[in-house]
Amino acid sequence: MLTIGERINGMFRDVRRAIEEKDKKVIQDLAKKQLEHGADWLDLNTGPTENAKEAMLWLIDCINELGEINICIDSSKSEVIEAGLKHVGRPAFLNSVTAEVPKLERLLPLAKEYDSHIIALAMDEKGIPASVEERIELAAVVLAYGGELGIPQDRFWIDPLILPVNVSQTSPKTVLEAILMIKQLDNPALNTILGLSNVSQKCTERSLLNRTFLAMALAAGLDGAILDISDIELQNSMIASELLLNKDIYCDSFLSAYRKK
Amino acid sequence: MLTIGERINGMFRDVRRAIEEKDKKVIQDLAKKQLEHGADWLDLNTGPTENAKEAMLWLIDCINELGEINICIDSSKSEVIEAGLKHVGRPAFLNSVTAEVPKLERLLPLAKEYDSHIIALAMDEKGIPASVEERIELAAVVLAYGGELGIPQDRFWIDPLILPVNVSQTSPKTVLEAILMIKQLDNPALNTILGLSNVSQKCTERSLLNRTFLAMALAAGLDGAILDISDIELQNSMIASELLLNKDIYCDSFLSAYRKK
Repeated sequence: MLTIGERINGMFRDVRRAIEEKDKKVIQDLAKKQLEHGADWLDLNTGPTENAKEAMLWLIDCINELGEINICIDSSKSEVIEAGLKHVGRPAFLNSVTAEVPKLERLLPLAKEYDSHIIALAMDEKGIPASVEERIELAAVVLAYGGELGIPQDRFWIDPLILPVNVSQTSPKTVLEAILMIKQLDNPALNTILGLSNVSQKCTERSLLNRTFLAMALAAGLDGAILDISDIELQNSMIASELLLNKDIYCDSFLSAYRKK
Repeated sequence: MLTIGERINGMFRDVRRAIEEKDKKVIQDLAKKQLEHGADWLDLNTGPTENAKEAMLWLIDCINELGEINICIDSSKSEVIEAGLKHVGRPAFLNSVTAEVPKLERLLPLAKEYDSHIIALAMDEKGIPASVEERIELAAVVLAYGGELGIPQDRFWIDPLILPVNVSQTSPKTVLEAILMIKQLDNPALNTILGLSNVSQKCTERSLLNRTFLAMALAAGLDGAILDISDIELQNSMIASELLLNKDIYCDSFLSAYRKK
């Protein structure tokens, strides 16, 4: 599966302070730690801050100093994503677009220009639909718009949007059904992705809920996740899941073999 | 989910010796431990022994001394199951029948007489079919035979038969697909069950593989398992899975709340 490390996010206090104080070391240490734990990409999110655009460019500079690392630009503000994509200087992950036309009109041409991967959230200006079918319709809106621009379908990663289990206890099952359905929509199948930790937001036993839901979602066909990549138990669940789904070959040392890769 | 404790099985050395030496305490301690950990039923399997029938009756006596405990009579030999069902003296689980007519003819009338639950293995004299469809066909043979005898459909528990992941790496995914399909065959849906630990037989990291596959199988619709109920991490995975599938209500102390029940 494709992994995006979630940790460089201004919602975390250490990252918020690092952004305020321009403390590069905090950001770079978090980057190195996540890469050591196998992150394919690093999510960058400034969190709530007055000058989000400037903060995003600074975060990108912090990462770029470490080398050509895969960057995922995460913001709900189109102008921040736009500035970020232009600043990275190589293909990035765009996190995220919704099925809102102004957003699609502004961001998808840029995504094409910079050969980005695009996380497409199954929501629009009215929010997240309750039913699986409506979520899939919204994803289809994004894909159709991208298709008209000539963006290859494999650049899109559909996020069916998981809510915290203590807020909506029907959400995990709905998301699993959505993944199953999305994977059957087309051939080759569309990519799916989740912001995994959201399932356990403000819950107890977060790691247990995250790793249990990851196994379920991978079995349903999930292809990637933004996740707490440094959580060893979560890693173990991911590695065991890939083995059980025949995506990685069994050997008795399968945990260490995976980590050596 | 319905849980059947797997531990009283002559394949384990301590149980084999207890059977040979008629050491009740070993069996009764294993029974108590599994019940304390929440087992709904206790599987009894003599393992390879010269006089399996006599050994099964002795195991049943050991358990019956502790009270009216739910007993699952586990043997590949029809005469052992027959003697066991008659000896228990109350409804039991019958583990198992296959789609072999001589077995069905001998065991299903007895199952009806003693109001048993019946584990139906998706195999016949030719073994376990490779495809999901053929496994479901074999399960249908058992159900049809039971239907003719007037056994209610909810007495049957279909086992799609998981092979060890180091023997057949395609088996876990095939079994997940089989569970998904079996659950859609009828309304109300048929019961499904697995001998969970078999997925990790002779593997390393058995608990990790067991609990990861349990989460996947529950998400696919699994209703019950014969399992290592004393494995705390496996219990946690089961409890978290039921919560995520909205079968148990979230509260911050969900682990201890479940265990108090």
